Amino acid sequence: MKVEVRVQLKAGVLDPQGEAIRRVLGRLGYAEVSSVRVGKLILLEVEGEDQERVHARVEEACRELLANPIIEDFEVRLL
Amino acid sequence: MKVEVRVQLKAGVLDPQGEAIRRVLGRLGYAEVSSVRVGKLILLEVEGEDQERVHARVEEACRELLANPIIEDFEVRLL
Repeated sequence: MKVEVRVQLKAGVLDPQGEAIRRVLGRLGYAEVSSVRVGKLILLEVEGEDQERVHARVEEACRELLANPIIEDFEVRLL
Repeated sequence: MKVEVRVQLKAGVLDPQGEAIRRVLGRLGYAEVSSVRVGKLILLEVEGEDQERVHARVEEACRELLANPIIEDFEVRLL
């Protein structure tokens, strides 16, 4: 089963990487880009047919490893 | 306008980061995870109302900065 995990900084958490990208885009002429936030898109291949169980296990893996609960939110989508 | 850019390694390109995560997940007991691929999820705020123009400009920014055309594919979605 293919599972997609979206990990993003929580609202209000500063994103120095995104801010640096925004500045470089500005210098390249993309002044219309007023904000950039960078997150992770993690694609997993997970063995198992029970969608509920796979979803729960991946959420567990997010809490344990894939996302930093203090500054990041995550979302698990079965594909 | 909110725009989402998904940047992922092209198929066949090795993903050492993903492989390292898969191994750690295995040690944490998530043996059912057989593959991990890590990409970027970039959220942009772009000024402008013309959806076609905004989409084209963000694709241009992907080719120029946000994605490495040699090893990465990108996808632009207007939200």
